[in-house]
Amino acid sequence: MNIAVLGTGMVGRAVAGRLAELGHTVTVGTRDPRSTLARTEPDAMSTPAYASWAGQHPGIGLATYADAAQGAELVVNATNGAVTLDVLRLAGEQHLDGKVLVDIANPLDFSNGAPPTLFVKDTDSLGEQVQRTFPGARVVKTLNTLNADLMVRPDTLPEGSSVFVSGDDADAKSVVTGLLKELGHTDVIDLGDITTARGTEMLLPVWLRLWGALGTSSFNVKIVR
Amino acid sequence: MNIAVLGTGMVGRAVAGRLAELGHTVTVGTRDPRSTLARTEPDAMSTPAYASWAGQHPGIGLATYADAAQGAELVVNATNGAVTLDVLRLAGEQHLDGKVLVDIANPLDFSNGAPPTLFVKDTDSLGEQVQRTFPGARVVKTLNTLNADLMVRPDTLPEGSSVFVSGDDADAKSVVTGLLKELGHTDVIDLGDITTARGTEMLLPVWLRLWGALGTSSFNVKIVR
Repeated sequence: MNIAVLGTGMVGRAVAGRLAELGHTVTVGTRDPRSTLARTEPDAMSTPAYASWAGQHPGIGLATYADAAQGAELVVNATNGAVTLDVLRLAGEQHLDGKVLVDIANPLDFSNGAPPTLFVKDTDSLGEQVQRTFPGARVVKTLNTLNADLMVRPDTLPEGSSVFVSGDDADAKSVVTGLLKELGHTDVIDLGDITTARGTEMLLPVWLRLWGALGTSSFNVKIVR
Repeated sequence: MNIAVLGTGMVGRAVAGRLAELGHTVTVGTRDPRSTLARTEPDAMSTPAYASWAGQHPGIGLATYADAAQGAELVVNATNGAVTLDVLRLAGEQHLDGKVLVDIANPLDFSNGAPPTLFVKDTDSLGEQVQRTFPGARVVKTLNTLNADLMVRPDTLPEGSSVFVSGDDADAKSVVTGLLKELGHTDVIDLGDITTARGTEMLLPVWLRLWGALGTSSFNVKIVR
């Protein structure tokens, strides 16, 4: 599949790299490709400069958000939740219309210190905001409940665990479920329409505290039933 | 141990019944024991009248919130989150001082229809409200992330799953962890201080949607790591 991954951070790279490895044609979208490639220092999250990663992934293109989205059949939003709507506007509503839009972002608010809180929750969600802002896109919320490595290599955990899909479009959820299975996810739970993204986004507070308590983010939820 | 279980609903009965079965001395607390026993009709949640349950559990006493709490070494709050603070005030601050107070309640707000939202979240929690209102109590938040049957019989699931404890008092968490193990919980994760109750209370939205998606509330989270 021809896939655009919007976002050059840890999550974007993990998803882009693994999808390319699985045989998909992947273009990473960024605000300004030239300045993304010109950076040589690690970012605020200590993620190494994009150019060094790109050198190890010669098959993965880099383009503006708009160019990446325009050429893609499926678009992955791997941006910071705080800039998600802005980035998708830059990608262009016309380039999202009719496409499956996989939303991995979380509405984390770092303004009150650590751990972050959520800037939207309970009666609304980032997934719904994305769907409302881009009504022609077929938004599927998923993978926002585990770390970047486990998103794409869940089989590195000692046993199978669960991921969730939320969205209004059954076909889009089916496409995304297929991709999740390619990544190695064996238990994909369809929670229902996009409003169910409230549930998975509100998992973040316990996820963040588990990270603290366990001393690692290499864990995932399994729904035992 | 001498235990008071505040609340005569499904959760209170499940916890009281099982703790008595395990050999503890249990008194259930209610607003007005006479009127609780006089009721013959099922309640709004279709739970059968208390008297019929009490008839099957002759070893379990029924008393006012205050009398139950006064005689107990450990108090379990198994009330509806919306009335939790009122019930604990009726139990009496002086009867909670220095005691382990196990808070199982969730801050569910049913005023906006189904599924319920949360009346406190993200920057505060019901667990913290309880601890702030009763600073002498040693509050431990736990068991609010699974249904009443599984709280007390987690081994009815096909494999082990996880529960959490949050609280400021390490000794109190240790006592509660011991009780949880008696109930059959094999993976008790200490999330940290009482503010971490924000995390487990915010699990409710995804729990409620999983109930809908799976068609059963007989499931629990296992933290695979």
